[in-house]
Amino acid sequence: MKALEEKILREGTVLPGNILKVGSFLNHQIDAGFVVEMGKEIARLFEGEQITKILTIETSGIAIALGAAIAMDVPMVFAKKNRTGNLSGEMYSTVVHSYTHGTDYTVVVEKRYISQNDRILIVDDFLANGKAIQGLINIINQAGAKTCGAAVAIEKGFQSGGDELRREGIRVEALALIDSMDGGKVIFRD
Amino acid sequence: MKALEEKILREGTVLPGNILKVGSFLNHQIDAGFVVEMGKEIARLFEGEQITKILTIETSGIAIALGAAIAMDVPMVFAKKNRTGNLSGEMYSTVVHSYTHGTDYTVVVEKRYISQNDRILIVDDFLANGKAIQGLINIINQAGAKTCGAAVAIEKGFQSGGDELRREGIRVEALALIDSMDGGKVIFRD
Repeated sequence: MKALEEKILREGTVLPGNILKVGSFLNHQIDAGFVVEMGKEIARLFEGEQITKILTIETSGIAIALGAAIAMDVPMVFAKKNRTGNLSGEMYSTVVHSYTHGTDYTVVVEKRYISQNDRILIVDDFLANGKAIQGLINIINQAGAKTCGAAVAIEKGFQSGGDELRREGIRVEALALIDSMDGGKVIFRD
Repeated sequence: MKALEEKILREGTVLPGNILKVGSFLNHQIDAGFVVEMGKEIARLFEGEQITKILTIETSGIAIALGAAIAMDVPMVFAKKNRTGNLSGEMYSTVVHSYTHGTDYTVVVEKRYISQNDRILIVDDFLANGKAIQGLINIINQAGAKTCGAAVAIEKGFQSGGDELRREGIRVEALALIDSMDGGKVIFRD
């Protein structure tokens, strides 16, 4: 998606450790109109897949997942990081490893929000090592539903998560696919 | 907002401790089309206020805040619970007390995302004791920006947060205002 590549070049910042900051429009401040456009592009890519539900993980996937859900006119569910509080009912859960924070965390989805008839599209802001998306696939499998693919705003193509998912037969679409950020310069794949 | 009241009566569940579960459409599974409608209603209520930015707090405020931001065509910013990771830059921070979890937590907003010229509308899913909104007002004040009001999906009118904010001169609008949930029966204010 050309407009996203341009926005990354204009507003993104590369920090040490191959961190790409896009907090001005994607995951701290949200450019609402642009999230709607990204959602439309995701809907176009997965047209004909008869998606019934979008699944993401809190926190930073929620905005783009909602953009996709609006464009596709389906509900969106976000997996919650496990805490006490307002979750009752039976839950699917899985453990996700965070490289950023160096810890494991559990995410949960109430069983009533995924049925075995659902055709689910996973949506997230970033794909790097793929652990979050693997966790969501695990939850979809527990529910007996179908994973129709994963759509992310930005894939770090120099990390292995996307290719591992594709090898497992998952359709993965990135609106912007970055090949390199060496020396702070973002290079997109053609 | 009549449609929200009807949805609460149809889909909401009252749990012990005056907890209202609306996870089927507002804060676990999200009804995307309905969030867009709630956003339009918030835009209508604050029309003429020349809002330049929506401010919310992660996690469950993000969807309705994005709905409002789309309708008003302004950016949305969500305050982040303080963690290590992708936040660099100078930050405003404040401590919020959570009655649900019985703990204090710090939320932060990077300074670059609020300017003193901003006219900010706070949006959240629930208003009960008002501590989250008070924390966001504190951040807006640190930035020297203007708080134009707070819009929430559901106010628990039997708790004091909304009235305290109104006494402080903050305009507070609730799309559904609940007077009582005694015995599990939801009663709205006329």
